[in-house]
Amino acid sequence: MVFHYPNGKKYQGTPNVKNINKQLSKQSSYSNRGMTLEEDLNETNLYYRTHNIAVVHKKPIPVQIVNVDYPSRSAAVIKEAYFRQASTTDYNGVWNGKYIDFEAKETKSNSSFPLRNFHEHQIEHMKSVVQQEGITFVIIRFVTTDEIFLLEGKVLFFYWERMVKGGRKSIKKDEIIKDGIKIPYGLHPRIDYIKTVQKLNLL
Amino acid sequence: MVFHYPNGKKYQGTPNVKNINKQLSKQSSYSNRGMTLEEDLNETNLYYRTHNIAVVHKKPIPVQIVNVDYPSRSAAVIKEAYFRQASTTDYNGVWNGKYIDFEAKETKSNSSFPLRNFHEHQIEHMKSVVQQEGITFVIIRFVTTDEIFLLEGKVLFFYWERMVKGGRKSIKKDEIIKDGIKIPYGLHPRIDYIKTVQKLNLL
Repeated sequence: MVFHYPNGKKYQGTPNVKNINKQLSKQSSYSNRGMTLEEDLNETNLYYRTHNIAVVHKKPIPVQIVNVDYPSRSAAVIKEAYFRQASTTDYNGVWNGKYIDFEAKETKSNSSFPLRNFHEHQIEHMKSVVQQEGITFVIIRFVTTDEIFLLEGKVLFFYWERMVKGGRKSIKKDEIIKDGIKIPYGLHPRIDYIKTVQKLNLL
Repeated sequence: MVFHYPNGKKYQGTPNVKNINKQLSKQSSYSNRGMTLEEDLNETNLYYRTHNIAVVHKKPIPVQIVNVDYPSRSAAVIKEAYFRQASTTDYNGVWNGKYIDFEAKETKSNSSFPLRNFHEHQIEHMKSVVQQEGITFVIIRFVTTDEIFLLEGKVLFFYWERMVKGGRKSIKKDEIIKDGIKIPYGLHPRIDYIKTVQKLNLL
């Protein structure tokens, strides 16, 4: 069943809680933009899968199911459930034998990326991935300028530690430009982050 | 919030639909057993993570969210949602630089493992994982004898094709014993499948 919001956008099934609330509260001006990065990445991952480039999926949004109506098994309806905080990143999969694990975030800020976009345990998860020799990063989209950057895990960790040690609670856009890699928009795929990951491996 | 079922079992958050319905319909004699493999694997994955052996998580159960009450963002309540069919396997992660992707299934049958436990697209997903040089397999538990086997993707594919070509719709237990690897129960971790995967790599 495909569910449509009043704004006519097809429901993607796994936006983050903030986006769901914003969508359902009909703040569609932001929710549309809020969905865009996810939609672009879903399209990109579909392209990667259909072209045998990589197998990456967005994880379902974690919910705590409390009450389910099941007149028949096929028609089970969840009547009460709650959003749970994700303990990992949103996207993971395999590319060319390598484990890929990343988070995608947007910010409306022009000058910096607020680190409150992450939870401590997500950072810990990404550090564990690095320890297991997986590839982890964050894809950051600056909504107002529609610029997309890929920031390696180790770079994210550096700025996270700076915050933990009492430093600023965000990464300056200048720092992202300096330490990250800008991903240009494409047609197919829209956000070719694997090409960027290949550059990382050459370093 | 920790939700407890009448049978006193802590709700794990991500059992499959069948288990949820069985649990909520209070068929606890099976649901308890139905949860066991998942509980054992969750404990095993926690052990792997805390001991820096591997980073493997069970994916959240996919739900189609239709209606959410949000008196305040922190207290958003999902009022209507539906179970969606998983397009991938339940477990994935990284071990020693390698991508791990598997499904865990139980059967009450003593003599065979019914292939209806899988969907076509799950098999396709596992084939894509192999194509990307990831490690994929299924962990099968025979409930009545409490035996656990690991079956490599290529073995599962072989028997799936046999069914597609008009052959039997299940894998004989004898075939699983012959082509799979039995995983002995342990204390910590309870189901040391990584040790079995290491054996596979030696082949």
